[in-house]
Amino acid sequence: MEGNGAAETVVVLAGGVGGAKLAHGFARLGLGRRLAVVVNTADDFELYGLVISPDLDTVLYTIAGIANPVTGWGILGDTANTLAMIGRYGRPTWFWLGDRDLATHILRTERLRQGARLTEVTQELAAALGVTARILPMCDEPVRTIVRTPDGDLPFQEYFVRRRQRDEVLAVRFAGIEAARPSPDVLRALDEAAAIVLAPSNPIVSIGPILALPGLRDRLRRSSVPIVAVSPIVGGRALKGPADRMLASLGHEVSPLGVARLYQDFLAGLVLDRQDADLAPAIAALGIRPFVTDTVMRDEGDRARLAQETLAFAQQLRGARA
Amino acid sequence: MEGNGAAETVVVLAGGVGGAKLAHGFARLGLGRRLAVVVNTADDFELYGLVISPDLDTVLYTIAGIANPVTGWGILGDTANTLAMIGRYGRPTWFWLGDRDLATHILRTERLRQGARLTEVTQELAAALGVTARILPMCDEPVRTIVRTPDGDLPFQEYFVRRRQRDEVLAVRFAGIEAARPSPDVLRALDEAAAIVLAPSNPIVSIGPILALPGLRDRLRRSSVPIVAVSPIVGGRALKGPADRMLASLGHEVSPLGVARLYQDFLAGLVLDRQDADLAPAIAALGIRPFVTDTVMRDEGDRARLAQETLAFAQQLRGARA
Repeated sequence: MEGNGAAETVVVLAGGVGGAKLAHGFARLGLGRRLAVVVNTADDFELYGLVISPDLDTVLYTIAGIANPVTGWGILGDTANTLAMIGRYGRPTWFWLGDRDLATHILRTERLRQGARLTEVTQELAAALGVTARILPMCDEPVRTIVRTPDGDLPFQEYFVRRRQRDEVLAVRFAGIEAARPSPDVLRALDEAAAIVLAPSNPIVSIGPILALPGLRDRLRRSSVPIVAVSPIVGGRALKGPADRMLASLGHEVSPLGVARLYQDFLAGLVLDRQDADLAPAIAALGIRPFVTDTVMRDEGDRARLAQETLAFAQQLRGARA
Repeated sequence: MEGNGAAETVVVLAGGVGGAKLAHGFARLGLGRRLAVVVNTADDFELYGLVISPDLDTVLYTIAGIANPVTGWGILGDTANTLAMIGRYGRPTWFWLGDRDLATHILRTERLRQGARLTEVTQELAAALGVTARILPMCDEPVRTIVRTPDGDLPFQEYFVRRRQRDEVLAVRFAGIEAARPSPDVLRALDEAAAIVLAPSNPIVSIGPILALPGLRDRLRRSSVPIVAVSPIVGGRALKGPADRMLASLGHEVSPLGVARLYQDFLAGLVLDRQDADLAPAIAALGIRPFVTDTVMRDEGDRARLAQETLAFAQQLRGARA
């Protein structure tokens, strides 16, 4: 363990739904504040003057146990009466916003306008919902994913929600990333880390922005604790979202091996699904230890089991390295 | 008629529920844009970072036909799921905000932060709801009513909603009024006026702030068209709200005569209820023409009938003066 000798922390880098599920699994292991989830904020955007952080909210709602289990995002049983009225006022309503969900956006926006850091605001919201895990925005500065398509550049939510990911992705960039820094809270969590886990989130637009933060990837390369990833690609497909098509159009192999190559410079181990067991030797050949198990999280039990197995795998790698 | 020769406008000065009902009555007379409702904004406040204009919203919802008919404020059939979640986040929720209602506050706040005038924003919202009457904030600058009580100074909504008007009112002031001005749109409406009507709203905290705007009261004193008021006091009581106790604690007579005295310097006529018919001679002795009718608006028919009678009364006074 590195750093200041604080209790050993499990750091999970995560995007939205898939990452939130695994983070929830770790939360169920009883880590309390020794779980730090570093969340992508490059999906964030402003709508109707409100600051919306979709991935932060998905992680928050999921760990708090109030997420909509069908969609994976939003709040269980939420209504959309505000949005219906916004539509009556003639405004576009392609981004679904629940009424309960709006409370999060309203209070976040208020606190940010008062000068609070996004990290502080997120901590306040999480504490109010009884979440003890540290949910950490990757940075406090605004970063915005821009997707290049044959129809031109699109802000991420235009591509993802409004146009339903139908466009071919030719390139991705993160506007504002040069001026952003991993937050002090993220750096502290990494200093305290006993294990670092990349959740099964989109490598390009969920994990990608976190890794693109100035200094972050170097920090991972220098890590003295093992870094393991859980592959978001199973049987040649993304379990959710456009990661498969995005990897393909950007010239990457759509498989755990393709994922391993993206993280090759810092990755110690990769958790992959039984469906992809035949790729284990090729992954091992990259110098990355493969671990084969069931990675599809169908229920909350799956989440905790996969988190437990991933943690044991990381601990085993750490022991082997020590 | 004064001014630029535009179509003859009926100008109604109004506060919340009572004023909104009479304004709705005028709207039902088919005046279209020839109805201008000048609305108190000194009740406005910020909550959760949102700019809330209770009187503007009550007038808007009432004329648009979507007001909650039981409370007189808020939107018919509205839910409060956002507010419940705000409470779950540990924030006070003493000011009831409906989910549909929140759309108004969210969009208003967005447009104001973009630099739009409150007058423009209100026009946009009203147009989207199919309202052709001009709903005009009394000014575009923030003005805030402060109520002095034995427990100290209270912002208006603290007094009105949170403490349910239980405090004795020792004095009222309008913070920011010196720097405020009647909006250009209000002045234009007054220039086009064929009649000016003070709605049966609280003389102290609804009509009071409008009259306190620099230059406004002088403008009314110089009016060449008759100004008539509808008494908000019937049978010694306010039909709604604390106007009766407020008038009493501030040393005014709680009757149409007391109301007439407050407006004596510019008022040509006063509409009072049959219950108060015995006060007509005393009102006439002030040089104000009394008009006795049924002033309690129990249904939408009452609103249009009272508006029609008030307009006919004003036209009669105008004819008498010409």
